[in-house]
Amino acid sequence: MRRFLLSAFLSSAVPAMAQENIIQYVKPITGTQRMGHTYPGATVPFGMVQLSPETDTIPYEMNGKYNPDVYKYCAGYQYEDKTIVGFSHTHFSGTGHSDLGDFLIMPTVGRLQLNPGTADHPESGYRSSFSHSTEVAEPAYYKVKLEDDNILAELTASNRVGFHQYTFPGTGQAHIILDMMSGIYNYDNKNVWTFIRVENDTLITGFRQTNGWARTRIEYFAMVFSKPFVQYGQQNNAKDVYKGFWRKFDQSKNFPEMAGRQIRAYFDFNTAPGEKIKIKLALSPVSTEGALKNLREEIPGWDFEQVKRDGQALWTKELNKIHIESGSKEEKENFYTAMYHAFINPTTYMDVDGQYRGLDMNIHTANGYTNYTTFSLWDTYRALHPLFNVIQPKRNADMIRSMLSHYEQSAQHMLPIWAHYANENWCMIGYHSVSVIADAIMKGNAPFDVNKALDACVTTARHRSYDGLEYYIDRGYIPEDKNGSSVSKVLEYAYDDWCIAQVAKKLGRSDIYEEFIKRSGNYKNVYDSNTGFMRPKLNDGSFKASFDALQTHDQGFIEGNAWNYSLYVPHNPDEMITMMGGKKQFTAHLDSLFTMELPDKYFAETEDITRDGIIGNYVHGNEPSHHVAYLYNWTGQPWKTQERVRMILKKMYHPGPDGLGGNDDCGQMSAWYIFTTLGFYPVCPGADQYSLGSPAIDKATLQLENGKTFVVDVKNQSDKNVYVQKVQLNGVPLNRLYITHADIMNGGTLTFYMGAKPRKG
Amino acid sequence: MRRFLLSAFLSSAVPAMAQENIIQYVKPITGTQRMGHTYPGATVPFGMVQLSPETDTIPYEMNGKYNPDVYKYCAGYQYEDKTIVGFSHTHFSGTGHSDLGDFLIMPTVGRLQLNPGTADHPESGYRSSFSHSTEVAEPAYYKVKLEDDNILAELTASNRVGFHQYTFPGTGQAHIILDMMSGIYNYDNKNVWTFIRVENDTLITGFRQTNGWARTRIEYFAMVFSKPFVQYGQQNNAKDVYKGFWRKFDQSKNFPEMAGRQIRAYFDFNTAPGEKIKIKLALSPVSTEGALKNLREEIPGWDFEQVKRDGQALWTKELNKIHIESGSKEEKENFYTAMYHAFINPTTYMDVDGQYRGLDMNIHTANGYTNYTTFSLWDTYRALHPLFNVIQPKRNADMIRSMLSHYEQSAQHMLPIWAHYANENWCMIGYHSVSVIADAIMKGNAPFDVNKALDACVTTARHRSYDGLEYYIDRGYIPEDKNGSSVSKVLEYAYDDWCIAQVAKKLGRSDIYEEFIKRSGNYKNVYDSNTGFMRPKLNDGSFKASFDALQTHDQGFIEGNAWNYSLYVPHNPDEMITMMGGKKQFTAHLDSLFTMELPDKYFAETEDITRDGIIGNYVHGNEPSHHVAYLYNWTGQPWKTQERVRMILKKMYHPGPDGLGGNDDCGQMSAWYIFTTLGFYPVCPGADQYSLGSPAIDKATLQLENGKTFVVDVKNQSDKNVYVQKVQLNGVPLNRLYITHADIMNGGTLTFYMGAKPRKG
Repeated sequence: MRRFLLSAFLSSAVPAMAQENIIQYVKPITGTQRMGHTYPGATVPFGMVQLSPETDTIPYEMNGKYNPDVYKYCAGYQYEDKTIVGFSHTHFSGTGHSDLGDFLIMPTVGRLQLNPGTADHPESGYRSSFSHSTEVAEPAYYKVKLEDDNILAELTASNRVGFHQYTFPGTGQAHIILDMMSGIYNYDNKNVWTFIRVENDTLITGFRQTNGWARTRIEYFAMVFSKPFVQYGQQNNAKDVYKGFWRKFDQSKNFPEMAGRQIRAYFDFNTAPGEKIKIKLALSPVSTEGALKNLREEIPGWDFEQVKRDGQALWTKELNKIHIESGSKEEKENFYTAMYHAFINPTTYMDVDGQYRGLDMNIHTANGYTNYTTFSLWDTYRALHPLFNVIQPKRNADMIRSMLSHYEQSAQHMLPIWAHYANENWCMIGYHSVSVIADAIMKGNAPFDVNKALDACVTTARHRSYDGLEYYIDRGYIPEDKNGSSVSKVLEYAYDDWCIAQVAKKLGRSDIYEEFIKRSGNYKNVYDSNTGFMRPKLNDGSFKASFDALQTHDQGFIEGNAWNYSLYVPHNPDEMITMMGGKKQFTAHLDSLFTMELPDKYFAETEDITRDGIIGNYVHGNEPSHHVAYLYNWTGQPWKTQERVRMILKKMYHPGPDGLGGNDDCGQMSAWYIFTTLGFYPVCPGADQYSLGSPAIDKATLQLENGKTFVVDVKNQSDKNVYVQKVQLNGVPLNRLYITHADIMNGGTLTFYMGAKPRKG
Repeated sequence: MRRFLLSAFLSSAVPAMAQENIIQYVKPITGTQRMGHTYPGATVPFGMVQLSPETDTIPYEMNGKYNPDVYKYCAGYQYEDKTIVGFSHTHFSGTGHSDLGDFLIMPTVGRLQLNPGTADHPESGYRSSFSHSTEVAEPAYYKVKLEDDNILAELTASNRVGFHQYTFPGTGQAHIILDMMSGIYNYDNKNVWTFIRVENDTLITGFRQTNGWARTRIEYFAMVFSKPFVQYGQQNNAKDVYKGFWRKFDQSKNFPEMAGRQIRAYFDFNTAPGEKIKIKLALSPVSTEGALKNLREEIPGWDFEQVKRDGQALWTKELNKIHIESGSKEEKENFYTAMYHAFINPTTYMDVDGQYRGLDMNIHTANGYTNYTTFSLWDTYRALHPLFNVIQPKRNADMIRSMLSHYEQSAQHMLPIWAHYANENWCMIGYHSVSVIADAIMKGNAPFDVNKALDACVTTARHRSYDGLEYYIDRGYIPEDKNGSSVSKVLEYAYDDWCIAQVAKKLGRSDIYEEFIKRSGNYKNVYDSNTGFMRPKLNDGSFKASFDALQTHDQGFIEGNAWNYSLYVPHNPDEMITMMGGKKQFTAHLDSLFTMELPDKYFAETEDITRDGIIGNYVHGNEPSHHVAYLYNWTGQPWKTQERVRMILKKMYHPGPDGLGGNDDCGQMSAWYIFTTLGFYPVCPGADQYSLGSPAIDKATLQLENGKTFVVDVKNQSDKNVYVQKVQLNGVPLNRLYITHADIMNGGTLTFYMGAKPRKG
């Protein structure tokens, strides 16, 4: 009883008490080294602004060829780097391809330098050396000393406004550089057009229009200084820009209308020693007028500390949705850092008045919902959106509304594949919007027109010219010689089709059900019973002759080899297991996967995971195997699931820069961590079941949006006690290896009793 | 009495009766040969769409250098040409520099060709031969036979929608080409970005964004076909365009989302013999959504003939504002063609809902007025806007509101100099918005905040970094060695400043009056009494030593030589005459101007007028001398004004392709014709007086917007009887050489009695 009261006290009093506690466990620096592709800068949950340092801005292309080194800079920051180029306002978190890096700002003193210089010789440009010893990265706050010029840089943000605070030495030569050329995954012609207006001596507006991963992207800004500049100017590397009668003016200095493709502007100030120059820069997908609206509504004043406090309070509120009790600081840091990374993307993509830019480049208004962008759906349909259905159901429904708006605005009549900033970028495979929509509908989190949503799914899945679908529809498989990565595509289409079938069944639309439940069996068409692997077929119907089941490249798969990908039938593990020789043979396959020695040569060409992202031949740093450790639940050996998931948690996640074994992929890697730590995982989104694993905390309290509380109470767990001995749901023994979505949403307690030995049979 | 009744009958019955009669006198082909720079295509009065053929689309640059031949194609059409490349939707009328030519459409049959081909070998591309014998150019209607493919092309337009009607032969290979690369004054990088969406099998939307005369211009369209296409495709010359994951698709055929810098799209049809394919293409400065709104509101149906009738009815209404009686068909053709050309620019620049793009690239709404663009103010302040104050006062006030909006949106806080499509292009000199505003205020046509308007004028005139103004303000002249064309600038600034002073005086703002009336005397600072000419001074205060008063280039003037430009003190002819040695000497100067033989060498480099645009050394093809023939009224020899203006009317204006002796300049040349034909001219806009000349018609009836009628009744005029014997206003002898604006607006009759001999003294 006493314990209950304490628990009740905790859960209601959490907001005040936990504020300090929870924030401290978030380490935004996690994953900034090597392959995590996270960024350390300031953002609020699902915020439009991600204000973060760029440690290099190397070009996407060198001499017309792709520059593989650029890959490191997907998020603009690499922990090993010694210099900072500046602070820009948009970043992806954890992606494996990139864009953005808009509106780079850098403070300098002394002689004005308008080129960034090189990492080896930061003094040759405006960049500066820095040291991690002066660096602080917290949710909604980032601080670093720019050593070359002795400037303290601090950043915070609201949803749509980045707030900079630069503490200068005393000088008559303080500069703020606004580099419109800089960008992530940049190249000479990436800027289609840029435009700056100096509206008065504190207000600057403009836009940057790019052609990159997003083909036609335009982002607007409005930026104010806390004090008037003394003078300003630009270096306009007017490549291919028509000068016309603008030549009448000396546009290099104090000329308020700048436009072109290669502009770097600067603003000069005098500063007293220790004087702070503050900058607020608001974004808008709509217009500079929209950016100004955002700026004035979100941060009307100049209180940096208050904005930081507000940002951290937002984080505290979101992080408190799951309160964990655990002995280890490291586990808390892992957990709340994962929560942090899970709550960054998708990002808000509308102005404070609800206006946003659509795929048709027209301005639309989001009526009654928040419009989001940055949908890395091949990654996030697996665990991130299911996690949202549990602890962010309102946002998840809004994300689906945003996806349906995308569909309505798409001239191709397609739901998003990988979408960002009013663009489809067509990255990766499948049509996993369908999974996200089905998961929400099947779990009852669908405050939108479900029949229209189903129509959007069906139209998308029937789009014959999309990525091998014509073959898939006509023949049930995709010839590898017609369309590469064919097996991955068939397997994922089959799963997505199952999702559509589930929704159709629920809505009583039997024609659609029949069509898509049939398609969902297409995975069988690429199974080669001779080798025991999924295997690419050719146009003539034969299996591709040369075939290396360990090789990731050119074998019919993408971001995975046949060993891993062959296990991808999340909607029907039982049938898959039967097809692959029954439970015993399948278990042996799984065991080998986790224990075999993968020759180095198979790792050599893998670009998006670190060596640590692999256990045996099990690849966790990429997504296709994220459900695999749970498959032992279907082979009668759940203790192996329990053992494996604990191993993966331990091996793959650490707090600290190198703490992620692969791209965080907009939160998918983190969402896996959260579910698995809680002891259950959505092996098949679109079904309402969560497969049980081995909870890695002592207790977790989920504050649900419906006002209920779901507690995972774990008795006797430890690094050794990873095996589940028994499970109770609300005190009643649970005689199944899963819980349902309703079990969670109804509130209650799931109690795990743990021990050091597997409980077999 | 009987005559009075007939006249009353005519003026009220004119709309019905004159409809047929007036339209027939308009010859849009006038000025399409050589230097007129007019276009023959379809437009409605002040319409957003100017749908007209391009007879060539030669590049603005060749091998990185300006291509002087492009100058001929300012309006896209040259009468001598033998081929038509296609029909685009935006054209300037009569300008001396260019841009536009948006969304070129061309119908073809047979083998698909996506390059325009050459004029010498039209069969090498999609262009076609044509002949003037099949060409019909009327207000709001254009027709021509495209001979190569046996297609009859017909064009008409509403304000914002171009309507094409193509009559095809029977074929399974009919094509409509939409060339997004094509443009007037085009070059490789002029397209910053273009974007097309095939929304369904009849609807296409998109935009074209360019960097040219307008630095940052974007124009949207929505286009519908009268029947569905069979298939479509694109040639995307993807120069510098990032392809990314769009490579998944075959984008060349039936791919509905096109973007890049070098796109030519095509749409294929089957046609029965004589089948018409119709296209409606709506423009918008705001968005494709705006274009669709415009399309649906302005032309919901498909009745080409009705749209043509509606367009011609709009013309009839405008043309009827001045009803002339004259014996000669040629005079009527001259007059109504001039009226037509005067009523094309400025053009409507807002959607049907009042939204338009501002100079800040934000979307604004014109509340309670029509927003206009294309302000060729150095030309049009002289006679076109004064003409509007008489017969288009409402539109003129709206044009000024548009100019004030431009000012409010200008980061430089400048009224327009030469503005088009949400851009300032800074062409030519002065700040003649000020004159247009002053003229309206002084004539009582100012339904806007006059004090704010004065502030805008003052801020503009104090803009020190604009085109030599800092010198002008500080020293009263501009050193030619610091800023070229210095004398022209000083003279025009001085006049503009006088305009500001008049408004300030009227509004009782004496500080401003004092400042600007003083500045208005600056013309004296560039008068060289030794030579008797205005003459450039250098930074050291001395006159430039080498000086050729006949030469137009590099002598301190622009589009005029010292002989012509020295007469430019419109606000104080009396003082100017005194300064230049008194009436006798001044009269001798004027006489010489009109009668001297100008050596050919002085004409060789003049690009924007024809040899016919010169009488002696008097240049009518450019604007600075447009008031000069009227100056005899100040020397006591008004009969010479009467003689000269009749000579100019005869020599410089003819119906027919070569009917204009220089660029029509957005209607300024035509407005000069209209005023002068009526017998009076605004020598000094901003003053409310019109200087009397020699009316060249028998009678003119001006239908004023205030409901009154002003009649110019001319007794006994003929080609020989050009001399005014006496003048009566409402039957009372007029003992002055001018009438006032009030004289006109009060209604009444101005009666000229003409004779064959000068009436001296």
